[in-house]
Amino acid sequence: MVRWIAGINPESFVVIEAGVQRPIEPVKRCRVSNFELRITRCYLLAPAPVILGMTLAAANRPVVDFNDEVIGAKAGVREEEETDKEGPPAASMLVHLDNIAMHKRAPVQQAIADIRMEMKHLFRSYLKARGFKEFEPPSLLAQHLKVAAMFSEAFLAQSPQFYKQFEIAGGRKRVFSIAPVFRAENSNTPRHMTEFTGLDLEMEIRHDYSEVLYLLEGVLLYIFRQVHRIFKDEIELVRSLYPSSEILLPEPGQKVRLTFTQAQQLLREEGPAEFRHVRDDEDMTTPQEKALGALVRQKFNTDFYVVDKFPETARPFYAKLDDTTAAGSAKGAVKVTNAFDMFLQGQEILSGGQRINHPDELEARIRAKGIDPASPGIDGYVQVFRQVGVPPHGGGGIGLDRIVAWYLGLPSVHLAAYYPRTPRRLLP
Amino acid sequence: MVRWIAGINPESFVVIEAGVQRPIEPVKRCRVSNFELRITRCYLLAPAPVILGMTLAAANRPVVDFNDEVIGAKAGVREEEETDKEGPPAASMLVHLDNIAMHKRAPVQQAIADIRMEMKHLFRSYLKARGFKEFEPPSLLAQHLKVAAMFSEAFLAQSPQFYKQFEIAGGRKRVFSIAPVFRAENSNTPRHMTEFTGLDLEMEIRHDYSEVLYLLEGVLLYIFRQVHRIFKDEIELVRSLYPSSEILLPEPGQKVRLTFTQAQQLLREEGPAEFRHVRDDEDMTTPQEKALGALVRQKFNTDFYVVDKFPETARPFYAKLDDTTAAGSAKGAVKVTNAFDMFLQGQEILSGGQRINHPDELEARIRAKGIDPASPGIDGYVQVFRQVGVPPHGGGGIGLDRIVAWYLGLPSVHLAAYYPRTPRRLLP
Repeated sequence: MVRWIAGINPESFVVIEAGVQRPIEPVKRCRVSNFELRITRCYLLAPAPVILGMTLAAANRPVVDFNDEVIGAKAGVREEEETDKEGPPAASMLVHLDNIAMHKRAPVQQAIADIRMEMKHLFRSYLKARGFKEFEPPSLLAQHLKVAAMFSEAFLAQSPQFYKQFEIAGGRKRVFSIAPVFRAENSNTPRHMTEFTGLDLEMEIRHDYSEVLYLLEGVLLYIFRQVHRIFKDEIELVRSLYPSSEILLPEPGQKVRLTFTQAQQLLREEGPAEFRHVRDDEDMTTPQEKALGALVRQKFNTDFYVVDKFPETARPFYAKLDDTTAAGSAKGAVKVTNAFDMFLQGQEILSGGQRINHPDELEARIRAKGIDPASPGIDGYVQVFRQVGVPPHGGGGIGLDRIVAWYLGLPSVHLAAYYPRTPRRLLP
Repeated sequence: MVRWIAGINPESFVVIEAGVQRPIEPVKRCRVSNFELRITRCYLLAPAPVILGMTLAAANRPVVDFNDEVIGAKAGVREEEETDKEGPPAASMLVHLDNIAMHKRAPVQQAIADIRMEMKHLFRSYLKARGFKEFEPPSLLAQHLKVAAMFSEAFLAQSPQFYKQFEIAGGRKRVFSIAPVFRAENSNTPRHMTEFTGLDLEMEIRHDYSEVLYLLEGVLLYIFRQVHRIFKDEIELVRSLYPSSEILLPEPGQKVRLTFTQAQQLLREEGPAEFRHVRDDEDMTTPQEKALGALVRQKFNTDFYVVDKFPETARPFYAKLDDTTAAGSAKGAVKVTNAFDMFLQGQEILSGGQRINHPDELEARIRAKGIDPASPGIDGYVQVFRQVGVPPHGGGGIGLDRIVAWYLGLPSVHLAAYYPRTPRRLLP
């Protein structure tokens, strides 16, 4: 029997009947070294092929290449595995996805998947405990990303923004959704996918939009702290493949909240020379964001912080202007919004703020942005604010794939997705 | 102030400052009749229009017409409300959806939405407690429902079937997903939508596929019993608009499980005359299903039951044949599968069964169904079973919109959806 068992191809599915016993000496190169199985029967239920497209050892090595490939490439056995300095060969993302079963069997991918699902669960449970109701936004829309076939004019959702606000208009008070969103981004980068999962919420405001800011800060810190607590082993496993430093979270009462103006000033005064002349009325670039992350870590000892009061030029038409500065203070020239971003190590992970809830104000802002309020998609949106009185409200959106990838220090969001989608990748 | 308050349009959003006091006599026509508010201040935060597109009273009446309309019709004030014999006027689904905020403010729609979300939650919590891991299937595929724009050849998911099986192949043991699925059905019926939410699960089988059957039976009965327990008031509210009889669930130990052959025999022997000659090798029609539901209720006092061992002609290629009957028994002529449906009052609410886990067997069945195993979409699916040894497994799928609608006796699944989608309906 031993010879027969030794002949079973790795990754076959077997059922064994065995007694548990103590080994004479501890078993080496195993996670469980103090017990062993004395096999009495073994059934081969499903054999694996003689040659695997990717071995488990290779699947559990860091992915060496995220270059994308042509759509429709066949899954199958490939011999594109690359060697590197130490250990078993590592494989490209292409090989991983062409061997999806082996990709998923790798302990590192199972750890990432478990952490991802727990983040969704934490988002949901934190909000439900605070009176939020979940809802499901549609994927098929009359605007945005076009769908052919049956529908002469159907599109895919780029964001549940309008629908979150319809729920608030519909009297649901506090809502959230966890749903796929779609982008027709033609960029093959480690930061983008054409389909990803959005964690979105929207809530009535009682006194001030800072209620929204505090709640979003709360849910993100809750997710990060709980994941840190629950997944110590899994995070260590991921770090053993993709090294990253411990994420610094603010101590209670030590949260860092900068206004956009303060952030730009910090960059001008203490950032790299190239940012000496950044302006208060222009959005930050990705390099600026990274530099700010480094400055905040150094000065405030945290990787998580908020930048609030973005200039209106950097925000969509539905962002509510800050009435206090808009009324013409000393620096009345720069109109700012009650809108903010949240960052992790200099990377934006959340965008949120107060939304305009009056139809005339909304229409004026739409026009100010050079958009026709009667254009398709916009007209139906504005109309909802004319149907009923809509309470003051605000909310925010988080890309699940990004918080998984960046919290774990993964080299690409594609590793955080169950089935990554890019303009060139629809399989498996 | 009283005159000013009386002048506020209904459905405006106001903030009031008030003291609570006992009324001199109980307040009539209110849900809370023993307390009243003594208002000291009132702020009008967001006024509603003078004329509402649909009043709250109308929104909380049964929808009178589910006829669909042309895509892209503008939301707005319409005067299409119909009158009926008693009470305030009722409105069509068209008017409801064109006044989405009022539609959502109706207590009956809030009750339906709350029950829907709880059903999702119950599905999730029941499965998580039994070791299932949630995952997210992609919406964008290389086959099925075509998406234009950015993607030259992208399609929308009709089912997470293949992806559930990839997760099992990937060693995840027990998985479920809650995700949108899409159908290009050109039928405007109360049973169909182009986008709906699928509750799907897949699990390894240890001994026999009845493990899958029992688990699915368990999760559905758990959902129905919990909803019955938690939402007594809401169900009563829904029934006051859409009358339906109490759903009869089987007593513990009294579950009804018929084989397809037994079900057809029951129809032949005790059903309506038109079903005297139904055959064991042909799928049931919708009228047959309804008649069977009535027979089962009458004979077994339950509205919930299972029909097992469907003939292979009525099942897709991935359904596992029943080896015991396939081996040529007395009635060897009819090949049956380890696949089943579950019914509620004669309407199918779940389809499930064991799947083929060996690539050669799978390919043979694909050919037997007249499909080329090398055709796009099929080839990549079969390939996964050649990548590794895949354990025996099975699962099932539930349409969330249908179980909400049919459990509550709603006249259309469109009432159960947050934003119903049909070939002619993409707004709001």
